[in-house]
Amino acid sequence: MCNILVRGHGVPRHLQVAKEYSFKSSPPHLCSRWAPKEELQQLSKQYSNIKLLQLDVVCENSIKKVVKEVEEIVGDKGLNCLINNAGINVLASLEDVTAETMLTIYETNTVAQLMVTKAFLPLLRKAAQLSTGMGCHRAAIINMSSLAASMQLVQANEMFLKVYPYRIAKTALNMITRCLAADLKSDGILCISLHPGWVQTDMGGNMAPLQVQEAIPGILSVLDRLSEKENGSFLDWQGETLPW
Amino acid sequence: MCNILVRGHGVPRHLQVAKEYSFKSSPPHLCSRWAPKEELQQLSKQYSNIKLLQLDVVCENSIKKVVKEVEEIVGDKGLNCLINNAGINVLASLEDVTAETMLTIYETNTVAQLMVTKAFLPLLRKAAQLSTGMGCHRAAIINMSSLAASMQLVQANEMFLKVYPYRIAKTALNMITRCLAADLKSDGILCISLHPGWVQTDMGGNMAPLQVQEAIPGILSVLDRLSEKENGSFLDWQGETLPW
Repeated sequence: MCNILVRGHGVPRHLQVAKEYSFKSSPPHLCSRWAPKEELQQLSKQYSNIKLLQLDVVCENSIKKVVKEVEEIVGDKGLNCLINNAGINVLASLEDVTAETMLTIYETNTVAQLMVTKAFLPLLRKAAQLSTGMGCHRAAIINMSSLAASMQLVQANEMFLKVYPYRIAKTALNMITRCLAADLKSDGILCISLHPGWVQTDMGGNMAPLQVQEAIPGILSVLDRLSEKENGSFLDWQGETLPW
Repeated sequence: MCNILVRGHGVPRHLQVAKEYSFKSSPPHLCSRWAPKEELQQLSKQYSNIKLLQLDVVCENSIKKVVKEVEEIVGDKGLNCLINNAGINVLASLEDVTAETMLTIYETNTVAQLMVTKAFLPLLRKAAQLSTGMGCHRAAIINMSSLAASMQLVQANEMFLKVYPYRIAKTALNMITRCLAADLKSDGILCISLHPGWVQTDMGGNMAPLQVQEAIPGILSVLDRLSEKENGSFLDWQGETLPW
């Protein structure tokens, strides 16, 4: 099957993704910006093919270290699927938004995704060389985006006007997806942006309409179905295409 | 008629915009991130209604200072049109792009536009209260974007893959346009993104297909025609709508 690297501190989500994958895959690796929480540690005890790694996505040395650790685990097989799931948010309407929050959120939600991806490219390319077609079975980069990043849907989603830095950074992340999809196509590496649904995670909060248990099977099913046709697209957790 | 504030250091372009406007408008104000160049000083001597102001778009105090200066010039009439024209670029493909260039370009090409706009909002709102309809005759924010920011056209414009930080920051700027258009509609302030053409400016270089003299009449004609219909849209210098 394939190995998978899930990053981010939305613990309930990446915990669940890892659980599902652990049944059918060689090691999923979990990296978090902060120290692994207790739930994650329990998970790694329960499933021997889940490895916990620690990653600060805005620290170059931390990225280098974790790439090396993953390389030691995957060996010559390379890495099949990198899920860029890390993200932070602050409430900031037009009234409140500052240059500082704009830059902080961009650094973690956009720049870090590009830098982490760049660092893992050698492992993704290694995996791509061992297979054909396009998709998570070969080599794929999944950028966790958001419905809030759809420019066409801004007016339909005015509630997101309360999070200027977040939605602007996620829109920029969508452009990264487009650039990577074009740049890495000849390597056989696929890249998409995925809106994982508004889920009850640490970040999503209690108001979110979706339970982790509902969204995850959808996300995994989308990942399983990815092919060349979806390269460079913006999909939601049910596989529907979202407008830029 | 209307007053207009043109920012940016693409000297040939904002010089020409100012010249054209000087025939029909009350004072256009020119602000530059760096000290006004000789050409600008000549221009201000030639046209008495052109005022030169100095602005560093990434410096909060500089922004505050220039808003005060503009306020003293426009008085109770407020500001009708803010053209966010400042921008920098570096060559950076996927291979070369660094976190540092990503953040620097974002700060000047995206965050600064939002911060400058926020600072000028009271003057734009003042102008909006004195008129009806929507457009540059009343109150408008023009964000100078780029064809390179169109996510849909990434594959048609692969040459722009050499400027990751620039195109990603300009895409983020387009989202700012969308948010401002939604947020400020009730104030009667219009906001668009404008691709001014690839013009032979300091930044555009000699390879650019358009002369300043060709592009400027197009840009001014687009500005003149703006109405509620165009609020929140992405137009090129000939008035054509570009896809996000």
